[in-house]
Amino acid sequence: MLGYQPDVIKAALIDQIEKGYEIGPQHELSGEVCELICEFTDFDRAALCNTGSEAVLGAMRIARTVTGRSLIVAFTGSYHGIVDEVIVRGTKKLKSFPAAPGIMPEAVENMLILDYGTEETLKIIRERADELAAVLVEPIQSRRPELQPIAFLKELRTITKQSGSALIFDEVISGFRFHPRGIQGMFGIKADLGTYGKVAGGGISVGIIAGERKFMDALDGGTWQFGDDSIPEIGVTYFAGTFVRHPLTLATTKAALLYMKAEGPQLQVSLNEKTSLLANALAEICVRLKVPMTIVHFGSLWRIKFLEEYLYSELLFTLMRYKNVHILDGFPCFMTTAHTQEDINKIITTFEESLTELIAAQFIPLYELEQESEQITSKQIDFNTPPVPNAKLGKDKTGNPAWFVEDIQNPGKYLQVN
Amino acid sequence: MLGYQPDVIKAALIDQIEKGYEIGPQHELSGEVCELICEFTDFDRAALCNTGSEAVLGAMRIARTVTGRSLIVAFTGSYHGIVDEVIVRGTKKLKSFPAAPGIMPEAVENMLILDYGTEETLKIIRERADELAAVLVEPIQSRRPELQPIAFLKELRTITKQSGSALIFDEVISGFRFHPRGIQGMFGIKADLGTYGKVAGGGISVGIIAGERKFMDALDGGTWQFGDDSIPEIGVTYFAGTFVRHPLTLATTKAALLYMKAEGPQLQVSLNEKTSLLANALAEICVRLKVPMTIVHFGSLWRIKFLEEYLYSELLFTLMRYKNVHILDGFPCFMTTAHTQEDINKIITTFEESLTELIAAQFIPLYELEQESEQITSKQIDFNTPPVPNAKLGKDKTGNPAWFVEDIQNPGKYLQVN
Repeated sequence: MLGYQPDVIKAALIDQIEKGYEIGPQHELSGEVCELICEFTDFDRAALCNTGSEAVLGAMRIARTVTGRSLIVAFTGSYHGIVDEVIVRGTKKLKSFPAAPGIMPEAVENMLILDYGTEETLKIIRERADELAAVLVEPIQSRRPELQPIAFLKELRTITKQSGSALIFDEVISGFRFHPRGIQGMFGIKADLGTYGKVAGGGISVGIIAGERKFMDALDGGTWQFGDDSIPEIGVTYFAGTFVRHPLTLATTKAALLYMKAEGPQLQVSLNEKTSLLANALAEICVRLKVPMTIVHFGSLWRIKFLEEYLYSELLFTLMRYKNVHILDGFPCFMTTAHTQEDINKIITTFEESLTELIAAQFIPLYELEQESEQITSKQIDFNTPPVPNAKLGKDKTGNPAWFVEDIQNPGKYLQVN
Repeated sequence: MLGYQPDVIKAALIDQIEKGYEIGPQHELSGEVCELICEFTDFDRAALCNTGSEAVLGAMRIARTVTGRSLIVAFTGSYHGIVDEVIVRGTKKLKSFPAAPGIMPEAVENMLILDYGTEETLKIIRERADELAAVLVEPIQSRRPELQPIAFLKELRTITKQSGSALIFDEVISGFRFHPRGIQGMFGIKADLGTYGKVAGGGISVGIIAGERKFMDALDGGTWQFGDDSIPEIGVTYFAGTFVRHPLTLATTKAALLYMKAEGPQLQVSLNEKTSLLANALAEICVRLKVPMTIVHFGSLWRIKFLEEYLYSELLFTLMRYKNVHILDGFPCFMTTAHTQEDINKIITTFEESLTELIAAQFIPLYELEQESEQITSKQIDFNTPPVPNAKLGKDKTGNPAWFVEDIQNPGKYLQVN
């Protein structure tokens, strides 16, 4: 998020290498880093591990330990890392099966995979809510950032609160990056557990589980103190690792979070705005050149979305790479604070040049933008910047996110901002 | 293994921080590090990930992908990390169940947990060999280093070779540390897949899967090259991660392995000898002071083993810590190349002082060493240094490891070295 070798991370690394990077006993930076995480996420407690995948594994294990239930709902199109249970697909008949060879059907038997963002899904969740240990959600899917089902997420919050199921927001990508409090902060939703990683470590691998005391206490037994006869009394599960709370990771995480704290929420707002500008510029090129693609984005994530399949579509990535702009084929891109206007111009120019050459060589079929795909592009709303003061996010009549202001003539009622 | 902040690792870290620690495209050090790993382990191919737990997860997934089978045998008393499937216990009736709350019974249904090192276990494995995707073994269990079932391991190798099951040696603790080729090198056994981590990274978290081409190809589809129409043709599974092959990890792993390579196998031999000397000195104190404990060790790992349970046994760790020797209560200890003779003397003195004070305060019951526990101590054999040239490791009449030389009068027959 801060680019390659940002001074603040580099200094923290070198400083900590001098101080020592021994592992074993609890490191003195652990508490400080966890307090910063709680400050950002607004959660009671935080725990550290090695990777985002580990954080998800831990959050699921915690949810099952505390609720005593087995079933966890997750959604089609989400990505939650590399442990067996989250490499899973669902069927219309609500059967779950592994999404890669070498993973056993039994491993995913306690997962229920539902379509993301639909009324039908909410209905199923409502019916089975009392069975659910957790609902695990990647609120904005990195594979489909154009889908922003805020009302759906709010309803998930309501249902899981009633049923005592853990609502787990997997914010490994979005956390700290799109907003200091992640998508929870952008949408005004508070999950029970959040999983984080990536940018939180400032370029060094870190995994974070943060959450409500009720759930987090399953990692250590809860509050106790010296000087009286208190002991940790909550039942715990097992979650550990030789390299968790590594001094270098703690140092870079602390440095990254302190930097973000000093910059304030404007850091993420600016980054998101920069991303919108780039995405809109690229999307405009797609329309103008009549190619079967568009750009979808959310926060500081953007990606090329192909609107129809055609042969050799990956040549775009090859040609752009040849022209010194690297996009990992088919993966999302992230803007960093280090990207300059010059970098952005270079991306735009290279994109247009590459498309133009591929069209001339007849490697891209012409495509007349239809209504549907226009909507995909125009649906991008900047959720960080209210268009008028005190505007609040809600959903419009079609269920899409929109800004609203209170109707002064009808207190408690809202008017949509167009 | 090299102590805190060893120069060679510190220099590699600082150098790589200057060069860059960007993630994304394949890093130029990846190939070099994997070649070094293959050189040490004698395996065809190597792959990198974040942690030892991830390496085990990957190896199990590979074994199932390649064999098309489900069941994996593991052993009572082993430790294989934090993913659901390896936090498991077995029953006499060969049912497996999770060993921690929040893990689902279905998650461990494809694990068969058997007693380690017994004939009964070999019988079960032989009977079910054709069902087995893998036998996952921690050859010397860190919790029970006194158990060294070499003949059992050799028989596992024979059975799994016949059945086409992957023999996976989990050498996350032992790999590179006890011998350049791990326990496989010490015992003269070659597994199909080895998992490594810890000391290989030089203090930075790394996970390594190394193995035979037949298995490793399931990660990338196998050999292909530019300039002809070859493509990766082997069926693959999914295994990935944002931070795998992190430049800082690559740099420290390369530095640690190059250092070990330059030092030669004597590095591990000396470390193991140093450990034997310490362990024997501490064990002698246990006998002399008549305390219900002894020291067990293997390679450069040693641990205090309590021979009977008594109240407040953990006070030994507390008192030693008070006297500035930290042992994580009940965990194994590892000697490093940085431990000086002075350090060793300090450990010995502190151990004896602490025991003496605890005995005086009547916190440790007197214990007369019986035949059985004498054997535990005396069974420690140095497997690195043949007592006479060309001696080979085998098992004696009672099944314990012992050195043998060929009987010149009876070629093909062996005599035990006493």
